[in-house]
Amino acid sequence: MRIPFEELKAAFKRVLLKLGFTEERATLCARIFAENSRDGVYSHGLNRFPVFVQMVKDGLVAVDAEPEKLTQHGVTEQWDGHRAPGMYTATKAMQRAIALAKENGMGCVAVRNTNHWMRAGTYGWMAAEAGCIGFCFTNTIANMPPWGGTDPRLGNNPLVIAVPRQEGHIVLDMAMSQFSYGKLQEYELKGKALPVDGGYNENGQLSKDPAEVSEAERTLPIGFWKGSGLSLVLDVLVASLSGGRSVGEITAGGNEAGVSQLFLCINAEQIDQTVSERIIQYTKSSGLVNEQDDIRYPGESSLATRRRNEKEGIPVNEGLWQQVLDL
Amino acid sequence: MRIPFEELKAAFKRVLLKLGFTEERATLCARIFAENSRDGVYSHGLNRFPVFVQMVKDGLVAVDAEPEKLTQHGVTEQWDGHRAPGMYTATKAMQRAIALAKENGMGCVAVRNTNHWMRAGTYGWMAAEAGCIGFCFTNTIANMPPWGGTDPRLGNNPLVIAVPRQEGHIVLDMAMSQFSYGKLQEYELKGKALPVDGGYNENGQLSKDPAEVSEAERTLPIGFWKGSGLSLVLDVLVASLSGGRSVGEITAGGNEAGVSQLFLCINAEQIDQTVSERIIQYTKSSGLVNEQDDIRYPGESSLATRRRNEKEGIPVNEGLWQQVLDL
Repeated sequence: MRIPFEELKAAFKRVLLKLGFTEERATLCARIFAENSRDGVYSHGLNRFPVFVQMVKDGLVAVDAEPEKLTQHGVTEQWDGHRAPGMYTATKAMQRAIALAKENGMGCVAVRNTNHWMRAGTYGWMAAEAGCIGFCFTNTIANMPPWGGTDPRLGNNPLVIAVPRQEGHIVLDMAMSQFSYGKLQEYELKGKALPVDGGYNENGQLSKDPAEVSEAERTLPIGFWKGSGLSLVLDVLVASLSGGRSVGEITAGGNEAGVSQLFLCINAEQIDQTVSERIIQYTKSSGLVNEQDDIRYPGESSLATRRRNEKEGIPVNEGLWQQVLDL
Repeated sequence: MRIPFEELKAAFKRVLLKLGFTEERATLCARIFAENSRDGVYSHGLNRFPVFVQMVKDGLVAVDAEPEKLTQHGVTEQWDGHRAPGMYTATKAMQRAIALAKENGMGCVAVRNTNHWMRAGTYGWMAAEAGCIGFCFTNTIANMPPWGGTDPRLGNNPLVIAVPRQEGHIVLDMAMSQFSYGKLQEYELKGKALPVDGGYNENGQLSKDPAEVSEAERTLPIGFWKGSGLSLVLDVLVASLSGGRSVGEITAGGNEAGVSQLFLCINAEQIDQTVSERIIQYTKSSGLVNEQDDIRYPGESSLATRRRNEKEGIPVNEGLWQQVLDL
């Protein structure tokens, strides 16, 4: 079943208004949820919406709270999100980082006490659309053991780097785990093995069995020791620059709320966009492993899905869609 | 055989002066080569020195050239390295990024036409030592196929993130390939298998055999498609912000010379260093895969090696040491 973008957005907005969101916030958050589904990130679009509604009902998201600037040092700012809706605060923070970058070449906003921003890439696309190179970092609840360890102590701390490009922005949006728990579940439900090792099983062996890895709670960091180190550093960056909670402290709280985030922009209005064009063409000039596949740049698949879903409507799970209509 | 730090540095300096380096440049580059060996990065210390000398003799490094600022937009600058010694230009660029950050909260210098900086981490340690969070990016010659491809089209484009910390800076220094060619050779010479898959063999199968992977020229990006995407984005960042050569253009030149680099600093004087302390302690509180191993933060091993080598002298390959003494 496919739903037009506007219909999806309107449904989300109706529910958010009912939850006490202002017109501005309901419009913004509904658009982001709908765009996430439109771009094929269903896990943070429609599929996540009922979970978000529950978090609001549980009081983990402060519907009316307004993020507040605490300090400014040159082109860097520190904000307190006061647990306002994460998408709202992330949008405001990225807008501010963009404005700082337009004026000063670069700008950065670190936010403590904020909430889940849903799809990390959203704010990268936003920076690129505004003509900026954007970096976005967040921490999460602990969901991955460090290299050499057996217990979850690291977040999968998504990392976004976005670069504006006429023909379609380059947007890297990657978590530090090879597969998220959502992805593992997807493979499990389809009864499929993972394409590459996704973690360790209870016996400490690398495994392509999504159920085994989930059960053992031992997902694999990208690049083994490397992703483990990068995840730790990203937590240090967001928590220390914002003065906010680290992965351990979020985990101790029991909910993925009150996280720390960082938005950093570099003005890219003067860069020569033919550079990225040449890099993409050179990369695609490699021979292929499978002739039916292709080599893609980060953001390419999202854009293709967006174009298809804009034309044909956004695929939705009928049960979830009905659930939202009934809210 | 172990050599005191000062003796190593003096030997390097003598050779560099003979090659026409000024006193200042010879001192700086000799110190960096010696520090790289001291910190256990032998591949970019003594072991690399004869290769560097040859590159100077081949005219790929312009001994006397002075990097030049081309443009400034707020806190961001674009420089031309004019193919001066890479360590010299990288040091100057990082010093400038630090100064910009101290004054404005953040600063960034993008450098085109520069040369190999040897150990990437050097400039991260430098930023952290100055009380800044430092990001360093560089591109390289193509040495890794993109995900889905069979031919080298991506560089292993090292990424550095450094955060100052009283008890020892956190310095992540990671290339985008799971193992460098140097590492593959190290395992091959020892007749050892890689601890995890390092790439594909000629038959397109994942392999732990370092010789097979080297022969096929199909090293694996960290996290498969993820490291492949990150490598591409890092090339786009350094080449487009500096207006310099991309991986493809460096590769077409036939030598790893005239590369593009980026140095970005955030002033960290005001951050609460207990945050990183808590993150490290929490991470280390995980159960261990092997009781005799431990969980380490990025930079921990380098610091331990540094302390040992400072006390006991720096281990050198006798043949290479003699080779340098004979230069």
